[in-house]
Amino acid sequence: MKLVRYGESGRERPGLIDADGVLRDLSTLVADIEGKVLVPESLARLRGLDTSELRVVEGTPRLGPCVGAVGKFVCIGLNYLDHAEEAGMPIPAEPVIFLKPTSCIVGPNDAVEIPRGATKTDWEVELGIVIGKPAKYVAVEDAYDHVAGYCIVNDVSERSFQLERGGTWDKGKGCDTFGPIGPWLVTADEIPDPQALDMWLEVDGVRRQTGSTRTMIFDVPTLVSYVSQFMSLQPGDIISTGTPPGVGLGMKPPVYLSPGQTMHLSITGLGEQRQTTVAAG
Amino acid sequence: MKLVRYGESGRERPGLIDADGVLRDLSTLVADIEGKVLVPESLARLRGLDTSELRVVEGTPRLGPCVGAVGKFVCIGLNYLDHAEEAGMPIPAEPVIFLKPTSCIVGPNDAVEIPRGATKTDWEVELGIVIGKPAKYVAVEDAYDHVAGYCIVNDVSERSFQLERGGTWDKGKGCDTFGPIGPWLVTADEIPDPQALDMWLEVDGVRRQTGSTRTMIFDVPTLVSYVSQFMSLQPGDIISTGTPPGVGLGMKPPVYLSPGQTMHLSITGLGEQRQTTVAAG
Repeated sequence: MKLVRYGESGRERPGLIDADGVLRDLSTLVADIEGKVLVPESLARLRGLDTSELRVVEGTPRLGPCVGAVGKFVCIGLNYLDHAEEAGMPIPAEPVIFLKPTSCIVGPNDAVEIPRGATKTDWEVELGIVIGKPAKYVAVEDAYDHVAGYCIVNDVSERSFQLERGGTWDKGKGCDTFGPIGPWLVTADEIPDPQALDMWLEVDGVRRQTGSTRTMIFDVPTLVSYVSQFMSLQPGDIISTGTPPGVGLGMKPPVYLSPGQTMHLSITGLGEQRQTTVAAG
Repeated sequence: MKLVRYGESGRERPGLIDADGVLRDLSTLVADIEGKVLVPESLARLRGLDTSELRVVEGTPRLGPCVGAVGKFVCIGLNYLDHAEEAGMPIPAEPVIFLKPTSCIVGPNDAVEIPRGATKTDWEVELGIVIGKPAKYVAVEDAYDHVAGYCIVNDVSERSFQLERGGTWDKGKGCDTFGPIGPWLVTADEIPDPQALDMWLEVDGVRRQTGSTRTMIFDVPTLVSYVSQFMSLQPGDIISTGTPPGVGLGMKPPVYLSPGQTMHLSITGLGEQRQTTVAAG
């Protein structure tokens, strides 16, 4: 299933994209695409629906973040060997964890703000894992049981805030609009091998990132298990799994975003995102 | 006003402590002590109540976290000169920001878990700022307008996860139960000078931390303004402002927590917390 949230920001309604690519409304069945809807029993119930009986949504409404009421947004740093190299960072011996505040989450095609004072705003296409079952001290071999599905994440980052202002990376990772997610939450049954997905990102039509989840250092079940050793995970939480090479920071010389540019990104089976950059008001 | 949440974990009801120290129920007036209740107009309405007409809550129910549905839990590191020295860290040129996931939040007297694999679990009494009005690019001189009130935070930390496992501090700051907040959210009108509050923490009756918010490097309005440059703040968000000297990490030799110990902590006007440590299940 491809679950979506559509409509005005902050007032999104739940929906799904049917087998013909048609947006249909789910609001008579669930209040939102959120944690309690993502548990296995609930997803099984939705999977059993005759989608042809759901109301077709006319027009092309805005798509919101594909998960509502996200509890936490955990990110993994330097999880692709060649990205760690381009960033000039050591290859991590175990996963690097940081957090994005949920206030940075926006829809897949919403504008991305260049923060005031920013000079090094950068892009990062990433595979997002959406949790569907509470996870605490989960073994690697059980980890997939806790995954509801996957989505695209653009882990937008202001490198000067992240790396030159002291303290943790969090300072440059959580600016408003720095977390586009979606367009769809694709349930795990439709992604048989999350370690075989191609991914790319273009800026103003120029290809910047080309990669595959095959080259992750720590794979999806390892990450779910690992994070669950440090904090419990709840349905609706998101783990973003790191980015392949090609970020602006890694170019020689580095290239960063300015207002009026367009990012266009995709991961196999998970759709596409397209954001225009604007100066923060 | 002293606002509280009381009752079983996950099913807390809103209440207040009246001038005589009596717990009274607010659930006929508000659904929870959460962001939308903490905006200025709402607090003014509650302040206008005749508290003697509110139902007295009998017995001594558990107190939950004093704020519900916290959107984000921002923390400031190394914000007391003498704590930075004891931690062996450089004095920060600007505030150090990290995040605790909201899943770590518990009531003021709930058990604190020593995580599996932990060897260096430590305490940190801190002044928490509770946001009452959206804040983005707020000037220092306007910052107090965005503060609903204050509470005690115990920024429990596992130092081995924080400092020895790679990546950011977040790995050792967000374990379940590592964020006791409360007992009360004390509204700002009752704390005329948040930079003149004594604070202390004892472990098993032995005084470990003795400090005052006077010795903060960056004060409350500076922190609210500063954080708002990097991420917008919403009502119900919490900023924890750093800890004074006396943490276990700073002792020679260091002293850490093990299961079966009791932390007891207080800040002037904000009440007391008391937690017993237990091994994570």
